[in-house]
Amino acid sequence: MDKAALEEGADFAPRFDSNGLIVCIAVEAATREILMVAYMNQLALDKTIETGVAHYWSRSRNALWRKGDTSGQVQRVLSLSVDCDQDAILLTVEAGGDGKACHTGRKSCFYRRLEIGDGARRLVFAE
Amino acid sequence: MDKAALEEGADFAPRFDSNGLIVCIAVEAATREILMVAYMNQLALDKTIETGVAHYWSRSRNALWRKGDTSGQVQRVLSLSVDCDQDAILLTVEAGGDGKACHTGRKSCFYRRLEIGDGARRLVFAE
Repeated sequence: MDKAALEEGADFAPRFDSNGLIVCIAVEAATREILMVAYMNQLALDKTIETGVAHYWSRSRNALWRKGDTSGQVQRVLSLSVDCDQDAILLTVEAGGDGKACHTGRKSCFYRRLEIGDGARRLVFAE
Repeated sequence: MDKAALEEGADFAPRFDSNGLIVCIAVEAATREILMVAYMNQLALDKTIETGVAHYWSRSRNALWRKGDTSGQVQRVLSLSVDCDQDAILLTVEAGGDGKACHTGRKSCFYRRLEIGDGARRLVFAE
């Protein structure tokens, strides 16, 4: 697919990397909070589209991962968008369960931000 | 670094992939809109932290890329967060120039969403 078709066309042509994966961001619809970043392969993408529930590919377990199967944090997909060169996916979701998408028990995986003090880099916890 | 330190510690220990890259999401502070997804290597990350302006690593050009150098879309970084296992970075930014972060002239790279009609997948443009 040429660049114009990739960027300005109506054909959905996700570009998986050399490991067969594409990066995916899940955002909570109501708050626009970024919940997590994960990866999909073709199977996970197909399952997500077919079921309307987010599926990812676990790189650590090397297995299809229906988000929420063990935690209850099922993510109902309200929309799926793709970026200009189709190598990143954005899911807008409604989070099920208690809404804590991160496996650490937090709502978002992005719970620490960088601070610089006395020239040293350290992480501080949000709130 | 063990899992507990990685996830619950104050040490900033970004995990670059086998290509020396880490995925990075840029969000507009005022609107929480996701502008783009790009990659950083250690150099780009250091430059971002030192200057307070987003630097990425261009995989296509294989070069350090100070966002906005040619487009004027400089991104002033208000905060830099890391996810639980420190393999993804989230930048909250103020966009300079006319605010169009995408090289296609749009504000966000995520300007198309997937629709299913008659069993076929196609992209439709936002707004």
